[in-house]
Amino acid sequence: MKAALFKSHYQIKLADTDAAGVLYFSSLYDIIHGVYESYMHISSLSLKKIIDEKNYFLPIIHSEADYKQFMLLGDMIQIQLFLDNTSQHTFTLRYELYNKKEQKTALAKTVHLSIDKTTTQKINLPDELIYILTKNITNITK
Amino acid sequence: MKAALFKSHYQIKLADTDAAGVLYFSSLYDIIHGVYESYMHISSLSLKKIIDEKNYFLPIIHSEADYKQFMLLGDMIQIQLFLDNTSQHTFTLRYELYNKKEQKTALAKTVHLSIDKTTTQKINLPDELIYILTKNITNITK
Amino acid sequence: MKAALFKSHYQIKLADTDAAGVLYFSSLYDIIHGVYESYMHISSLSLKKIIDEKNYFLPIIHSEADYKQFMLLGDMIQIQLFLDNTSQHTFTLRYELYNKKEQKTALAKTVHLSIDKTTTQKINLPDELIYILTKNITNITK
Amino acid sequence: MKAALFKSHYQIKLADTDAAGVLYFSSLYDIIHGVYESYMHISSLSLKKIIDEKNYFLPIIHSEADYKQFMLLGDMIQIQLFLDNTSQHTFTLRYELYNKKEQKTALAKTVHLSIDKTTTQKINLPDELIYILTKNITNITK
Repeated sequence: MKAALFKSHYQIKLADTDAAGVLYFSSLYDIIHGVYESYMHISSLSLKKIIDEKNYFLPIIHSEADYKQFMLLGDMIQIQLFLDNTSQHTFTLRYELYNKKEQKTALAKTVHLSIDKTTTQKINLPDELIYILTKNITNITK
Repeated sequence: MKAALFKSHYQIKLADTDAAGVLYFSSLYDIIHGVYESYMHISSLSLKKIIDEKNYFLPIIHSEADYKQFMLLGDMIQIQLFLDNTSQHTFTLRYELYNKKEQKTALAKTVHLSIDKTTTQKINLPDELIYILTKNITNITK
Repeated sequence: MKAALFKSHYQIKLADTDAAGVLYFSSLYDIIHGVYESYMHISSLSLKKIIDEKNYFLPIIHSEADYKQFMLLGDMIQIQLFLDNTSQHTFTLRYELYNKKEQKTALAKTVHLSIDKTTTQKINLPDELIYILTKNITNITK
Repeated sequence: MKAALFKSHYQIKLADTDAAGVLYFSSLYDIIHGVYESYMHISSLSLKKIIDEKNYFLPIIHSEADYKQFMLLGDMIQIQLFLDNTSQHTFTLRYELYNKKEQKTALAKTVHLSIDKTTTQKINLPDELIYILTKNITNITK
């Protein structure tokens, strides 16, 4: 079983909730993307650096989520980030969310395509990115 | 081929975009959910009414999206809402997004579970909901 | 009494609400900025055009809002946009929000500074912008 | 000079930015409200507890912000929370934001009204709240 690339915690904020009293479904995507951003940042390949300095982009071409338990205002959620798989041009991240009772509350995926910033044509995954995704930094808790 | 339940338009706002200059991936979910809300509202079964007056909830248990074309600030997007399928306890909505050149820019789905508001146990889809989802109001443009 | 530059309607969406069951306070700013964007768009000086083609930016240097009535999921809100005043380098927009009972639900302002895109130094308000803000297109309802 | 009630850090996320490449103005309000929520949580009077268990609400009746420096994707911001003042029925929080160079990037305020949850009429600030706002827990860094 593969180890998590990264583990992080997030406390559900009022802005994330809706009038039904629970986490609004799209807020989950903001939370998991924040974990991806944190991981890239600590791996010295921040999204800021990619946008400003690199000749490639890594746009999300697919996202999905399964919601298993309601998440409520103030809930402290642990998010585990995994590399699900890579192809020549894409990588897939998997996010598992757990509440304080260690119940899985949600599962999500994002598929990222490597494209040339100028031509917007797909290109091979950059080596520096593959390195970060496969070096297996485990058990880092933010 | 099934007809759309509903068609709507949305112009990409600054709040929906990100520093990469395009629609932020999770904003897509806010946009499509807004279309679902509009459809329920004009069908006289608004989410407000469900939350306040009904004994059931329709939480999203799965969502997914494929991003096919970048959507940019100011782009006018047409969103078509389809009933993808129903089961005893769930219904699946499909959303197709098109730009002004009639190119499909994204495809998304949300799966909703019918639950009892008190017990949170799954229940049969309410008849009033089935009626709305299958009555085939077509070609209504907001 | 000055006439509104623009009038628009917005129906409160689930994404705008929070677990207290009402419009989340910062969502008000998204709503009013959307009205500003719509006005600029119909005035042929869209934010997209400014970001992509112009040598100036109009960043918000101050924003404020007074919340007078709770706004709830599904509420249809009328927003009136006014030019509050201009100075050499800034313009102030005022937004008045009304519910269906014609009660004022909120009041908001945004102050925008005209800056040179390259130097980021403040510059005189562009003539094309002054024209749009003072031409008094009234009673246009989106 | 009054000491901060609380200090926190926040790293600007992609979701917070817009196509102009900077922090979107309303995202500032989400960030500062998160700091307020964290402070209430560590003070054992979480918003969750207030919404679920208390007979009062503390809705925001006014908010304002001054934006002094652009904040960019990935910027690590320090937020200092101050009690600005209290009246019989209201309290005003002030938030000062600093970048890594210790430049003030923004200043914001929120005014909260104490109301009875049932009648929605204004009531005296609850003692338990006054205690939290004035006990001067300083130099706690999240």
